[in-house]
This record gives sequence, structure tokens and C-alpha cells, in this order.
Amino acid sequence: MTAPLTVALLGGGTVGASVARLLTEHADDLAARIGRPIVLSGIAVRNPDKMREGIDPSVVTTDTAALAASGADIVIEVIGGIEPAKTLIEAALNAGSSVVTANKALLASHGADLHRLAESKGVDLFYEAAVAGAIPLLRPLRESLAGDKVRRILGIVNGTTNFILSKMYDFGADYSTVLKQAQDLGYAEADPTADVEGYDSAAKAAILAGLAFHTNVTGDDVYREGMSRVTAEDIAAAKSMNLVIKLLAIAELTDDNSGVIVRVHPAMIPNTHPLASVRDAFNAVFVEAEAAGQVMFYGRGAGGAPTASSVLGDVVAAARNRVNGTVDPAQSNYAELTVKPIGDAVTSYYLNLHVADEPGVLAAISNEFAKHHVSIQTVRQDGKGDAANLIITTHRATDEHLSKTVDALRKLSAVREVAGVMRVEGRVD
Amino acid sequence: MTAPLTVALLGGGTVGASVARLLTEHADDLAARIGRPIVLSGIAVRNPDKMREGIDPSVVTTDTAALAASGADIVIEVIGGIEPAKTLIEAALNAGSSVVTANKALLASHGADLHRLAESKGVDLFYEAAVAGAIPLLRPLRESLAGDKVRRILGIVNGTTNFILSKMYDFGADYSTVLKQAQDLGYAEADPTADVEGYDSAAKAAILAGLAFHTNVTGDDVYREGMSRVTAEDIAAAKSMNLVIKLLAIAELTDDNSGVIVRVHPAMIPNTHPLASVRDAFNAVFVEAEAAGQVMFYGRGAGGAPTASSVLGDVVAAARNRVNGTVDPAQSNYAELTVKPIGDAVTSYYLNLHVADEPGVLAAISNEFAKHHVSIQTVRQDGKGDAANLIITTHRATDEHLSKTVDALRKLSAVREVAGVMRVEGRVD
Repeated sequence: MTAPLTVALLGGGTVGASVARLLTEHADDLAARIGRPIVLSGIAVRNPDKMREGIDPSVVTTDTAALAASGADIVIEVIGGIEPAKTLIEAALNAGSSVVTANKALLASHGADLHRLAESKGVDLFYEAAVAGAIPLLRPLRESLAGDKVRRILGIVNGTTNFILSKMYDFGADYSTVLKQAQDLGYAEADPTADVEGYDSAAKAAILAGLAFHTNVTGDDVYREGMSRVTAEDIAAAKSMNLVIKLLAIAELTDDNSGVIVRVHPAMIPNTHPLASVRDAFNAVFVEAEAAGQVMFYGRGAGGAPTASSVLGDVVAAARNRVNGTVDPAQSNYAELTVKPIGDAVTSYYLNLHVADEPGVLAAISNEFAKHHVSIQTVRQDGKGDAANLIITTHRATDEHLSKTVDALRKLSAVREVAGVMRVEGRVD
Repeated sequence: MTAPLTVALLGGGTVGASVARLLTEHADDLAARIGRPIVLSGIAVRNPDKMREGIDPSVVTTDTAALAASGADIVIEVIGGIEPAKTLIEAALNAGSSVVTANKALLASHGADLHRLAESKGVDLFYEAAVAGAIPLLRPLRESLAGDKVRRILGIVNGTTNFILSKMYDFGADYSTVLKQAQDLGYAEADPTADVEGYDSAAKAAILAGLAFHTNVTGDDVYREGMSRVTAEDIAAAKSMNLVIKLLAIAELTDDNSGVIVRVHPAMIPNTHPLASVRDAFNAVFVEAEAAGQVMFYGRGAGGAPTASSVLGDVVAAARNRVNGTVDPAQSNYAELTVKPIGDAVTSYYLNLHVADEPGVLAAISNEFAKHHVSIQTVRQDGKGDAANLIITTHRATDEHLSKTVDALRKLSAVREVAGVMRVEGRVD
């Protein structure tokens, strides 16, 4: 063992405090695993008076910019958001530090530039904690499946929405009631937009897609529908078909391998699918690869200690590389696939139509499906008279064909309302 | 891109043929990921006339020893068993080749020696495919959780036994009937001993324990009970308590951190536990770490293509290291923890006692539990008269105390038979 490696920590919030605590508590283990001790050279916080357990006051600073550029062996960024995080990480990379970050928003918007900068400086840029918190996921995708071909990723990567959908499913409660409960329990923010409208999941989907398909994908490339329109009727229909509803982040190769489609939306999946039993605030990512088949990673998606565990794993990897005088291969976008529009996505669908119960309705409706190249798989009629509704599931079709079918159905006089439309995933057609 | 890296493949069976096929089909992708092309310099097979699809006849040889020692950049061993695999791997390491193997039996018995040899030669020895086939597991344990402290691993790592137990549970069928069915379907060998008596799981448990706890553990260190004694009565009792039965491979730190206990045996787990829904021939490994909390890895445990996917992931990692002129940190046993006997294990238990239905029986039985420091959690009495039985579950107790309780119960005149004893895992006590 020679001189210790220095680690600079930017951010003293929940995750930062957990990182500081783990670095201290596991110092001996970490030194054994790395081959050299590591020492926390500084912790940059906004308010030095608001100290958290596990943080040594003597290394605390408010000069975040100076600490970022101090040339520490490893700089950890757990501040979040685009700025000042981006400027700080660039300063650290320019100073020759390897960087470990948990910043999904930044990676999803400026990942390609930051990876290029890290490569040009000959340092590592790791971000395991940015997707699905504690779950070892990005490294396995990058390394263990490196000899395979990933075709599709289905992820439950947002704990807030999974908690809300689990409760709606269990209790038949409506969205607004459960959201209120989730806010009271601290599972949802006062402004839940980033979670429930799928922005958070979209950032993670972009990161996963980039990694799995060696293509630059940003959050803006991701088709996104939130979960606030999921109704108690949708849930009842799902239950009756042995399906559950999850907000999924999906990244997939097109069948002809020419492009990728990345999308976030509520979807029905069979209740026997491994993702169906992922409940409450847990996350899981299901990967379909050509040779490996189905693989799933499961664990806590958020929280101080789980996120810190991921950060520390990256710190150990970066530190070992430092000791060995090497870096990991830079993240590459060599495949340069096109991100295709949602209309090109191919999947199955559920529709809930409120219809007039008059002769010929089903024929008229079936005719619109056929005209738009969408094949009906099942139809169930509930109720009678004005309250009749049709629960329809389809075989696989393109999203474009399905959209056009829905537009046409809305124009039929016998269709009072298209009360629900949802994609059905993970099913053998 | 400069000169290609050479890969020598030892073994042309199901896995070998899949490895050869993937190396060829994904050649461009692999070259992009590694930074240099790789070329298959030779495939050693026992019978060159029995050719498999995907294997190029021009590189086939029967001189396995010469190919192993040929100094290829990477030697892949997918022959299996202790010898000649051990001699071949030693020859490859001595010739300066990095080695990728799927050989669980060899790793579980001679892993420490082989790791030392690889370290002394400055080459990599990777074995992701040796445990849980396609599931990226060993690398995440070694790398992503490197900054955390693993406390416990619960694994379903044998597809044959999981298939049999799933069918016994679904159909209430007895062991011998389902075993026959599994053999007919090719899920079980004609001689199923290695699977059903837990030897295969024990080898994998030893590898997992060594990796997670940085301690040298061999298959012989693992306490082992097979699944052939699981009865339809046990399964009925489990169902009535919302538990399922799985053959688990368990590796855990003792509460005082001074030792590890590694064990393979049938166990009851709650049907809400993430491992409970792992069915048929799938594998999963559930990890409890101090900071990360609960993490699970799920996927196919066997089969040519899934195993080959894992092998290829290791090949890419070894090849990248070759290109960078580095190696991964050697696997270390720095913790040198003691492997403790099964008597020190602490868990809960299920007991099924056939008893005489006479006054004072429950008092006499309860007294034996109390005398041996085992606290009863629940008791249910079924049937009447001579056919009465008691289903008992306990709070956490040491295995030694439980064993002594069972011995004492067997001596009670009112206990006609101790018809079932099984550990209960994964439950909050």
C-alpha cells in the first residue's frame, strides 16, 4: 500500500451523507479491494451549518468549484440537475479526475459530450447510480452482456409511479386518492410531474438505450405518456384479463435492426411476467438478449444508502483503474442507429369503448380495425343499453395503424367514447 | 484496429458450439466493443467427425493439450469436470493466456490455486458462466457491490430441482413422479444425484460465498441436504402457510461478522418473496447488502446459448484488458473468515409431527422446545386420534438447538413420527 487515493465529494444531501458514511465505515474493506487506501479530501455543501450524520466537519467546504477542480483522483457528483453539475463535472474531468455521478438528467441530456471529454482526458466517467439506484445494472449491461445482442429492455425505473399503480391495483382506488397518500408518505413530491408524467423514466430510458444499443439517445428522443390518465376502469379490465398495469420504460431494436424505439408509457403486462411482481417502490429492469434470453435485475431504485452503494461500486472501479494506471473503454456510440418515431413501434393493444348497444355496432367497429390493418384478438362486451362497453385486445400492430384506428373509431356514431387505450407488453402474441 | 486477438476454444459440445457461433455472428460488434477484431485460432473437440452447426471444420483439432498451451490471447474452457480441465487451464495460464471458463466444479474445488496462478502470470481468469448461466451475477457482485457489504445470498441456482419443486407444488405430485417427468423432458439426468442431492448447488454456493465474502470456500465446506425427502405433506403444509418450497443455496455472514455459513437445502419461503415467483428452470440470486438492501438477479441458469452469452461477456472483458495491457484485480481472499458449522446457522423452522391425540401431548412437546431454547411461533393441529398431526413453526434459533429439539421429540412416546423438518428463510421474524 502506498499513498492514499483522494476522493472529492460534491453534494452533502441524503446521498452525499450516505456516501461519506460508507467511505468511512468501510475504509479497511475498500482499501483491501482497491489495493490502496482512499481518503475523503473534501465535501462541498451548500449550507455548512446544516450538518448531517457521518460527515466530518473538518473537510467541509462551500467552495464547490474549487473542490471540483482540485485534481482529486476521483470526484463524486451527487448534487443533481443540469447546472452547476455539468460545469463542475467538466472542471473535474479537465483537471484529470475520474468522475462518478448519480445524475440521470445530466447524462440523458449531455451524456455523449461528457463521455467524449472523459475519453479525451484519459479518465473514467461512471454513473451506475443514475438508473435504478442500488441495482447493479449498467455495468452488467456494458460488460457481462457485451458479447450478446440486446433486443429489448423493459424497465420499472420509477418508484413513485410503481407505488401509486400498485395501490390503485390493490385497492381499486383512483389516481388522485393514491397520489395524495403517496405524497403524505413521502413517496411522491409535492409537484409530482417529473415522476407521474414520465420525465424521470424517460431520462433513464435514454441512458439504458444508449448503453444497450451503442447509440446516442437523449431524453428528448423518448416518446412519453404519463400515468395520470390510467383509470379505475382500465385497472378492472386488466384484472379481468390477468394483466397488471405498470409504467414501463422500453428501449428496443426494430425488427430489421435498423433503428431503436424508446418509449415510456403505462402498459398492461401478464400477471405471470417477472415484472408483474415488482411492487411498491422497488425497481426492476427486464432485458431480452438474443443468446442470454430473459434476464432481470431487481432492487431498490432510490434512497440514500442504496444509491450510495452504487456510487461506491463505481468509486472502487475507478480507484482500481487509477491504481492500475488504466481506464475502462470509453462508452461508444459506434452503432449510430436511428431513433424511430413511436408510430413504428409494434405491440399489442387494449381498448375500452363505450358504445351504444344497437345492431351492427360490433360489425362497424370490427370493420374499422380491419381497414387499418389491426387484427382483433379478443372482444368482451359488458353491460347493456347505453352503458354497454367493449373491451378489445389486438394482435401486434404498429402504433401508427392503431392510432388511425382509434381516430376512425372516435368518428363512429355508435362509439360514445374511447374510454381507454393502452399498450400490452411482454405477452406471447 | 491492429492485429486480431486469438481465441482458443476447448470443448465442442452444446456450449462450445454456441460460443463458436456467437463469436462468428457477432464478429463486427465484438471488434467494435473490444477495439480489435478477435479470431478463433482453434477448437479442440473429442470427436472431429461429430460436427456441430456453427463450427468451422478448418480450425478443429483433437490435440486439446497443444491448443491449450498454444499461447492464444484467450483460452475458453467449456469441457467441464476436474480433469483434464484443470491441467489444461494451468497450461493455458502458464503460457500467458487469459482464461474464461464455465467450470463450476473446478472453481469450487481448486479456485484459490487457479486464481493464484493467474495472478502470478499477470493474466485474467474469468468464470461468470459457472454460476447461474446467463445471469450477469459474479461481475456485479465483484464490482458493482464492491463498495457495499454483502450480508447474505439466497440463490435458486439449479434449474432441475426448481423445475421438480415447481411441478410438485402446482400439482401436489410426489417427487418420484415429477422426477420421471423431468427426465423425460430432458430437464433431469438419468442419474439425477448431482442436482437433486444438492452437489451442483453446493459448488455454486461455494463460488458465491468466496466472491461475496473474500474468503476461500470449497464445495466440501458447504453443508448440503438434497430435496428427495421433500414430501407432498410438506408442500401442503407450506401452501396452508402461504409459503413455497425451493432448494436454496445460502451464503451468509454470522451476526458477529466473524465467520461465514454456507448451506444448501430445501427451504420454505414466503410466497411474496421475490424468489418465490422464480419458476421452472429459471435461476435467481437474491442478495442482501447493508447499503443496497435487497437486490435480485434473474435469468436462465443453463443451456447452450445462455451459457455462451456469459462466456462471451468474459471474453470481451479479457480481450479489452489485453488491448489495454492490463488485468482485472486478482480475486482476493483477504478477509480469511472461518467457515462455521451448520449448527451455528440461525433461522426459523417448520416441523410436521405425527402425534397421538392424548391429553398433555402439546404440553410435553412445548416443553422440549423450551428446554432447548427454541421458541414456538405457530402451532396448528390437523386430524384427530391416531392420525393427528401438528404443524409447528418456530422463531429464529440456532440449527444446533433445533437439532437437539428434534432428537428429544423423537424420544417422546406421544410423537409417532417427526414427518417433516424444514428451514424457513426470507421471513421477517
